[in-house]
Amino acid sequence: MSVLIVGSTALDSIKTPKAENPRLLGGSASHAAVAASFFGPVKMVGVVGEDFPKRYVQLYERHSIDLEGLQRLQGKTFHWSGEYELNMNNRRTLLTELGVFETFNPQLPASYTSSPFVLLANIAPSLQEHVLTQMRKPQFVVADTMDLWLNIAMADLLKLLKRLDGFVLNDSEAKQLTSEDDLFPALKKLHKLGPKYVIIKQGSHGSILSSPQGLFICPAYPLKKVVDPTGAGDSFVGGMMGYLASSKGGVDKNIRRAMVYGSVVASFCCEGFGLQRTDKVTRAQVDERVKELTALTKF
Amino acid sequence: MSVLIVGSTALDSIKTPKAENPRLLGGSASHAAVAASFFGPVKMVGVVGEDFPKRYVQLYERHSIDLEGLQRLQGKTFHWSGEYELNMNNRRTLLTELGVFETFNPQLPASYTSSPFVLLANIAPSLQEHVLTQMRKPQFVVADTMDLWLNIAMADLLKLLKRLDGFVLNDSEAKQLTSEDDLFPALKKLHKLGPKYVIIKQGSHGSILSSPQGLFICPAYPLKKVVDPTGAGDSFVGGMMGYLASSKGGVDKNIRRAMVYGSVVASFCCEGFGLQRTDKVTRAQVDERVKELTALTKF
Repeated sequence: MSVLIVGSTALDSIKTPKAENPRLLGGSASHAAVAASFFGPVKMVGVVGEDFPKRYVQLYERHSIDLEGLQRLQGKTFHWSGEYELNMNNRRTLLTELGVFETFNPQLPASYTSSPFVLLANIAPSLQEHVLTQMRKPQFVVADTMDLWLNIAMADLLKLLKRLDGFVLNDSEAKQLTSEDDLFPALKKLHKLGPKYVIIKQGSHGSILSSPQGLFICPAYPLKKVVDPTGAGDSFVGGMMGYLASSKGGVDKNIRRAMVYGSVVASFCCEGFGLQRTDKVTRAQVDERVKELTALTKF
Repeated sequence: MSVLIVGSTALDSIKTPKAENPRLLGGSASHAAVAASFFGPVKMVGVVGEDFPKRYVQLYERHSIDLEGLQRLQGKTFHWSGEYELNMNNRRTLLTELGVFETFNPQLPASYTSSPFVLLANIAPSLQEHVLTQMRKPQFVVADTMDLWLNIAMADLLKLLKRLDGFVLNDSEAKQLTSEDDLFPALKKLHKLGPKYVIIKQGSHGSILSSPQGLFICPAYPLKKVVDPTGAGDSFVGGMMGYLASSKGGVDKNIRRAMVYGSVVASFCCEGFGLQRTDKVTRAQVDERVKELTALTKF
């Protein structure tokens, strides 16, 4: 089955202590869509400007991503610029130029509205909801978010949360949103806001799922070298949704393995700037790393 | 088989944001020995003063810990006082009174010197080595440490490391000791210093083993409520060594499960002040929680 992914499609200029890379292909939808594409058909919703390089469109196409929902508008592509500190854990935004994103009003092509799996990748919650409203009867809707929306669009986010099956956020966002330091009270509050499936990302420590079936502790693949963690969270949730959409037997049966697959795709993402590494990865390499991770965690 | 454990035997006064508990039974040897006692015979080496409460001796005895190597000297028992911040991750030492520990010169009873498993729980590395030197032919020797010894006794620690099979430390200590931020280069340097088995503790995120058999990612049991994390690391390594000593088939076959058992005993430790919770736990409860943790991590 197909997964519909809406989010940002951006150009990212990323500085790390060791290198500087201007205008890489980035954005939550780009990372999530490529990650999901390892497992099955992906329909992407986004917007780019006139300056969006043709080679990036070709990259999407190489991964068989349906681009009918990708608008091309007059103006500039959303441009984000950020810098990482030495340990790659802290980053700061140097520049955000919204460009064509400022007036983005996603209208789904008719062929998109019946996708059973919907990933509202990180983007303003009002836009996430606008897309959701156009869907007919999605089976499983998951949203990702970021601290920015907790700060400036909390009311929209709370409204959206009521309509979600699953919600993905990192541990500091969970603390900020719930005012709870501890995992269990934070999860309890998050479920009360709507979603039955809550996934808390913990970076290199993996992630935790809380669902009607209880908790699942999902490991992260231990990386020899982190080149650029930008997009790792988007890759995680994209890979997870792609795997879920392509698997038989329902969400509860598959979500644990789906998270492990997402975790592995995210590990590849961290090994290159932007999508440079993920773009070159094969499904066989993903499967191999899942096997490795299985062996690393067996007891 | 038995495990010999040397370390500190102390009175701990622990302040948390919610409570204050003076003169609890504490010390690395106390925590490690009780943790190991769930699995088999334990011989403890330590020193206490005249003020050491009889009820704490009875606690050791209740767990069948061999106390022939516990010296009782004139003077005061080692007293540590510390305070935890709200999130229980940061603690600061308020007071350290060495008492009888200042002149502690552990002499092993003859019955102790042939223990096949030796745990040098956290204590000055020169004392750890002094005990090790008295052992006949131990099969598997593991040491734990803390940042204090990296700061004031690095030469002793480096000397000790050459004689160890296994070394346990937390992630910030690993960074400090190796000057490496990343896991793999840190592990490489640690192995070069001697031990074939290196375990890096990551608190509530679990731990990582690097051994001739490769990596193992060991999960932590997710706790509803952390009352007092003091001694969790000692309980982890104590439980691990106790399980190893009681299991057939060699270290490589058993060490992963041993770490999971250690992790579970440590989880109980965090649920009460000092040893209050661990003291009340049964082997059946430990087994039950290992089963739970197995289910929480299966995919």
